[in-house]
Amino acid sequence: MPRWKPDARQRLVVAALTLFAEQGFDDTTVAQIAERAGLTRSTFFRHFGDKREILTAGQQALSLLLAEGIADAPADATPLEAVAAGLERASGEMTSFNRELGPLLHAAIEANEELRERDALKSVGLAAAMSEALRLRGVTAPVAQVAAELGVLAFKAGFTRWADPDRDEDPGELATHTRAALDELRAATAELR
Amino acid sequence: MPRWKPDARQRLVVAALTLFAEQGFDDTTVAQIAERAGLTRSTFFRHFGDKREILTAGQQALSLLLAEGIADAPADATPLEAVAAGLERASGEMTSFNRELGPLLHAAIEANEELRERDALKSVGLAAAMSEALRLRGVTAPVAQVAAELGVLAFKAGFTRWADPDRDEDPGELATHTRAALDELRAATAELR
Repeated sequence: MPRWKPDARQRLVVAALTLFAEQGFDDTTVAQIAERAGLTRSTFFRHFGDKREILTAGQQALSLLLAEGIADAPADATPLEAVAAGLERASGEMTSFNRELGPLLHAAIEANEELRERDALKSVGLAAAMSEALRLRGVTAPVAQVAAELGVLAFKAGFTRWADPDRDEDPGELATHTRAALDELRAATAELR
Repeated sequence: MPRWKPDARQRLVVAALTLFAEQGFDDTTVAQIAERAGLTRSTFFRHFGDKREILTAGQQALSLLLAEGIADAPADATPLEAVAAGLERASGEMTSFNRELGPLLHAAIEANEELRERDALKSVGLAAAMSEALRLRGVTAPVAQVAAELGVLAFKAGFTRWADPDRDEDPGELATHTRAALDELRAATAELR
């Protein structure tokens, strides 16, 4: 039993990811997604333009939050402090629905080469959004690029730990996990030499 | 006129990338690729299992070269020095054919969302190969991950500069460009704070 109360949009996302994992992205139709969610096709189209949008809608929102957090960081924040502010902003918006979606999304991605490719491009998009927001703060291109890559790695690692279905204890706040992951990566840069 | 003497395999690659850019990956058939290359379908299948393999064959070879270079780096090499050795090994194997393919591949990727996704996953694969090779040298996971990401960024940036069709002067060696790009990224890590 899910712990969140799913609305129509959330039920459609869960149904779609489950079907993508079971039978692949290509072979899943909007009609099947709606049926699995116990809704009609027209309800689906009130929420999403097509099945692809189920996967991209979250990415656009996430990119925006990361970029906003970076833009709003104090003027004297270092590039990595600005990235931390972006992670904090985005993490704060993730709900327990996002957390419970994690394993479903992971299963869908593991099951489909096409979804793996899409997920890889999603990471590229997140890095580009963060890098651009850093450039607007006057950060040079290579520094912005590296800081953004570390930001993506930290967000993914933090999210994975937060959403781990095998975790026994209270998952706590996502922001705690993304911050710890970023600190770990920052420490790692000192050992590259 | 290409400056290299294309063999059948190279002609197939050039024909495929040109068609992918013109009409998309999905809408391009093996028959069309063979025809554009002035070869038969059976010649195509002597070189490639399917059209997808045209894009993945190079990646596997590249991953292997990067990993080998890292494995063969001196025992006392730092993680980033080992990555530099990997880039050097891979760069040394790239020919003028690879260089002239650069703009074609770029055009094909720009023209197709699907190829952009595939290219993004290719970068993930290269990073994974380098990270794994570093782990085998005893490098800790976060350090290996960051070093590998910098390696991918450096290889891509170096390759782009080397293959730039608008460049007037002699492109020189790819290794020179990937080394310069890695040095630039290494310097950038000092400014992350």
